[in-house]
Amino acid sequence: MSSNFPQLTLTALPGIPLVQEGDDLAALILAGLKAAQITLTSGDVLVIAQKIVSKAEGRLLNLAEVTPSAQAAELAAITEKDPRFVEVVLSESKEVLRMRLNTLIVEHRLGFVCANAGVDRSNIGPQLEGEAEYVLCLPLNPDQTCHTLRERLQSDTGADVGVIINDSHGRAWRTGTVGVALGVAGFPALLDMRGHLDLFDYTLQITQIGLADELAAAASLLMGQADEGRPIIHVRGVPYPFREGNAQELVRPKEMDLFR
Amino acid sequence: MSSNFPQLTLTALPGIPLVQEGDDLAALILAGLKAAQITLTSGDVLVIAQKIVSKAEGRLLNLAEVTPSAQAAELAAITEKDPRFVEVVLSESKEVLRMRLNTLIVEHRLGFVCANAGVDRSNIGPQLEGEAEYVLCLPLNPDQTCHTLRERLQSDTGADVGVIINDSHGRAWRTGTVGVALGVAGFPALLDMRGHLDLFDYTLQITQIGLADELAAAASLLMGQADEGRPIIHVRGVPYPFREGNAQELVRPKEMDLFR
Repeated sequence: MSSNFPQLTLTALPGIPLVQEGDDLAALILAGLKAAQITLTSGDVLVIAQKIVSKAEGRLLNLAEVTPSAQAAELAAITEKDPRFVEVVLSESKEVLRMRLNTLIVEHRLGFVCANAGVDRSNIGPQLEGEAEYVLCLPLNPDQTCHTLRERLQSDTGADVGVIINDSHGRAWRTGTVGVALGVAGFPALLDMRGHLDLFDYTLQITQIGLADELAAAASLLMGQADEGRPIIHVRGVPYPFREGNAQELVRPKEMDLFR
Repeated sequence: MSSNFPQLTLTALPGIPLVQEGDDLAALILAGLKAAQITLTSGDVLVIAQKIVSKAEGRLLNLAEVTPSAQAAELAAITEKDPRFVEVVLSESKEVLRMRLNTLIVEHRLGFVCANAGVDRSNIGPQLEGEAEYVLCLPLNPDQTCHTLRERLQSDTGADVGVIINDSHGRAWRTGTVGVALGVAGFPALLDMRGHLDLFDYTLQITQIGLADELAAAASLLMGQADEGRPIIHVRGVPYPFREGNAQELVRPKEMDLFR
């Protein structure tokens, strides 16, 4: 591979077990890399599914223990969702943006605009009694978790890598979900091209690229959603220099938002 | 590579020359594959930058020959854009959704919601006199172009591949642009998971995945935007069965749009 012949390779790490509260994600990543016979190298990126981060952090909530507020009951009637589920969504949200039958779109406490504040009822797992009552919330602080994982990987391997936690979000004007970055460390979440010139020496029109979201989407494609668990993706070949970064770079400030 | 160890590999085809009107894109793809020593195989995908498709189709317009309408002049005053540029944007649009200083967001005639109807002033090229006056519009029918390229590649190589034309679009609530699919052939643009069960036999909550957009984003990351031209990306390892498809699957119907 030369710079004239760039290649991006994503590998789903094999043998990752079902994750439970308290599990050591860095150890799982290192074991997965070993199983894939990959030697971690500076410039590599690890993309980790939100779901296993949330599980490791114990972000499961039992709906049987949730008492819906009056507001939750009201929104539940409009959306025809479980009032206890709506209560959990509201507890994770700053603001409700849109709602209608089956749809509840909010600003998550971390600033992400998404359905149900990312609270999920699928792939929760069979390890709990009455599992149908459990829901999984987003990680408490995905940027911090990425930062901690990155430091741990660097101290164990010497490699300076990027770490991304991804999730699948819907879009305003397009159907289907795509992977986006919830947490970022050691990687340019937003690539600022302002001042760069194009192929023909004119200033570029597109000046900021959602680089971590593009990589989150690529990893999401390989992770799959259903019958196979491939929650950790190793990436090699990102053709940009790395720097400190965080997923908040990708959150459009409310005052710049034309669509809420 | 086994199914327990999935890998997705994206390769930027080397040696692609600057594209001009009338160029044979299928021939460029085949030459690029040869230069990269890649034997095209069924299940591979080619992702092609919108810009070279538009150039091959002669979608350059000379602003010096454009006379702005009264509406274009009015929107140009609000957005502080060139009235002739706004005229071209309007001619490519169904509806203006939002505007303010420096920002003009429309529904493109093909249904995509994006800034400036995808009309671009950068990377247009030095091959024309007075090039600063030229702008580049989106391809006329990207789905049809993908279909034609796919048939041509199949007849030349025997391989049944997917073809995607991508572009970079902004998002409602996130900063930065990401690659999205403008045209699709032979590939599930939208992957419908309705009825599928999750790891633990519950019905999945996320039921539709914007698969072509995820791949468009991955390719966009490798294409870059500025000083290097890498407009054709070969992809191997997509872990889903292929089918007929088109980019209109990814356009949210107006009546389902909560954010316009």
